[in-house]
Amino acid sequence: MHVNVDRITRAQRLMAERGLVGLMILTHDDFRYFFGELRAQPRAIIPVSGPPLLISFAAEEPELRDSLADSAAIAVFSDVSQQMSAVRDAFNMLATADLPPSFAASPDGRHRVGMQFFFHTPAFLVDLFRKLNPQFEIVSSDPVMDTLRMVKEPAEVELMRQAQMVAARGMDRARELLRPGVSGHEIATEALYTMMKAGAEGTSTPIHVNTGRRSCWIHGTADSRPIESGDLVVVNLTPQVEGYCANLARTYVVGHPAEWQHHLYSTYLRMHQATRDALRPEITVMELDSIGKTICRAAGLGDHHIDGICHGIGLRFEETPASTIVKAHRRVKLRPGMTVTVGHTTLALPGLGGVRLEDVFHVTSAGAEPLFRYPLEPFSV
Amino acid sequence: MHVNVDRITRAQRLMAERGLVGLMILTHDDFRYFFGELRAQPRAIIPVSGPPLLISFAAEEPELRDSLADSAAIAVFSDVSQQMSAVRDAFNMLATADLPPSFAASPDGRHRVGMQFFFHTPAFLVDLFRKLNPQFEIVSSDPVMDTLRMVKEPAEVELMRQAQMVAARGMDRARELLRPGVSGHEIATEALYTMMKAGAEGTSTPIHVNTGRRSCWIHGTADSRPIESGDLVVVNLTPQVEGYCANLARTYVVGHPAEWQHHLYSTYLRMHQATRDALRPEITVMELDSIGKTICRAAGLGDHHIDGICHGIGLRFEETPASTIVKAHRRVKLRPGMTVTVGHTTLALPGLGGVRLEDVFHVTSAGAEPLFRYPLEPFSV
Repeated sequence: MHVNVDRITRAQRLMAERGLVGLMILTHDDFRYFFGELRAQPRAIIPVSGPPLLISFAAEEPELRDSLADSAAIAVFSDVSQQMSAVRDAFNMLATADLPPSFAASPDGRHRVGMQFFFHTPAFLVDLFRKLNPQFEIVSSDPVMDTLRMVKEPAEVELMRQAQMVAARGMDRARELLRPGVSGHEIATEALYTMMKAGAEGTSTPIHVNTGRRSCWIHGTADSRPIESGDLVVVNLTPQVEGYCANLARTYVVGHPAEWQHHLYSTYLRMHQATRDALRPEITVMELDSIGKTICRAAGLGDHHIDGICHGIGLRFEETPASTIVKAHRRVKLRPGMTVTVGHTTLALPGLGGVRLEDVFHVTSAGAEPLFRYPLEPFSV
Repeated sequence: MHVNVDRITRAQRLMAERGLVGLMILTHDDFRYFFGELRAQPRAIIPVSGPPLLISFAAEEPELRDSLADSAAIAVFSDVSQQMSAVRDAFNMLATADLPPSFAASPDGRHRVGMQFFFHTPAFLVDLFRKLNPQFEIVSSDPVMDTLRMVKEPAEVELMRQAQMVAARGMDRARELLRPGVSGHEIATEALYTMMKAGAEGTSTPIHVNTGRRSCWIHGTADSRPIESGDLVVVNLTPQVEGYCANLARTYVVGHPAEWQHHLYSTYLRMHQATRDALRPEITVMELDSIGKTICRAAGLGDHHIDGICHGIGLRFEETPASTIVKAHRRVKLRPGMTVTVGHTTLALPGLGGVRLEDVFHVTSAGAEPLFRYPLEPFSV
């Protein structure tokens, strides 16, 4: 556990520009970004100036204090109401504190607090915060956190590369198990074990091994139905290394592919290759999607093309641009240093089967490099 | 996939009594309760009368339609804006539909929609729903869902028993690996693999193997620090079987326990046994906590006692009464048929180490039975 002073200083500068008196951290990804560690309950406040405040369970305080020394303040709690009081007291102090000269005041006079609103921010905590702190306007912390987190530092890219290599080990294991009679659950079990032994902490999403007609699924699961000869199998692996997420998806056919399966696969492959070749600074997901759509149309699969071929990835499994979740992200321009996936969407014939191939790329000034080159062939196993 | 007509009918009766025109389902636990299956994106609407509406990705529709026949309506989407439109259109229809004669109208004229607000309800979806459906008041679905879900059906208890047996297999594996030099992560890796091979789909929370002073943690993680001789190790396992959650925690000392470790352990053991002996219909978590507090005080550990010894468990890892999250749940009375844990809280000497022992019990008219009797000894391994 340590306070990343550089990141906090940069966050505070952005908060002042945006008129935020503080960030309320409630998620593992933001917590790890500032404090470098997975904490069981990630609860912290970054004020616009001064040291951060960590909100800690009472019995964990001595360990925290030893590692943090004076780099952060610590408020302790033994129950939820104490936790909530600590948050309320801290924000009340912020509301009356001296604000930096560059501070952008809010038009309605209420101070603003930034918060992440994504899949891992529980709705009840946001509502509770609003109820207990009516003097604040709660706004999205994305303008601050995206500015910091979209472009990765070299050490972050290295961890993402490690995570992607761990995913590759899991995919090797999954592929060697693929045969009729084996279930998606058995494959997921072995792939997860392989990845954890290779250093994954766990996965950022459940492992998907979508078999047969379930290869159509937009996300997925790993069920106990035995694979049959001729099934399409989509394997999607998302191990994490020190919080950094990998994303590796491959599709296999067990046995000899049918004509339609081969057509789906070769179309996806062309879309995947054209998209990765087009990755470069300034391009948007909307532009990347149009490339894939043209390819799908030419292949007679235009009706089944889904927008959202690319998304950001880092400490969160889906970061800005996360265009299948936030439509405005379709116009976000890629920048050098970003890490993005190619191949997020499934190309499926409804009721029959689908294909997905996904890899992670590091955007460079010249284009993009894959974090790990996992083979796109063979299709048939 | 199937529609549980009985549960939906009972939900609709409760919704009419409470004046809810519909439930908006956004979480796996509620979705599985009504539809019996893990779906990648759990999105459904239960109207106060008539069949449920499932909101499905377009390519998944044929599979859904085959399994559901006419028992549910299906709205399909290919992107998030279509998904949101489907929800808005469905609720607009509900607002003008014929309501049951027993329907309790809202005082302010706005119709009410019920929604779960817990850890797995993303804040941004609730805010988006509010923005798109301003004609509705969003209220907690707990009064409906708790009434249905707190008391388990026999088949649910059987699945919970299976999950607890899977957890026991994982604990056996964890215990046999415990020795100096092994890390929490290695133990978690092997325990998870054992549990998945025994039929766990995964776990409802990350596996905790809290070693050394991290045994103080309120929740936990599994880190790579090698265990040292004399370390306390808290192992907390939460496998799921068909969505139903187990919870099994044990604490071991690696080597010979120090006096303070033995004292913590024996005090926790007395608190655990007294609490399980006191489990019976009508008792509250508040009353159960007072039993434990008396024991901790007598042992000179009163300052370190934490409230919340017991919580509900089922399709969600923490269900009503979840008194460490919702304070009002401290006064919820247990009822025959409920499944609850005993041993949720850590008893810790801050900075030194802590102890936790947790099991799941089925409340009966006479008292309570453990779902699986996992040994509470040995402490020292």
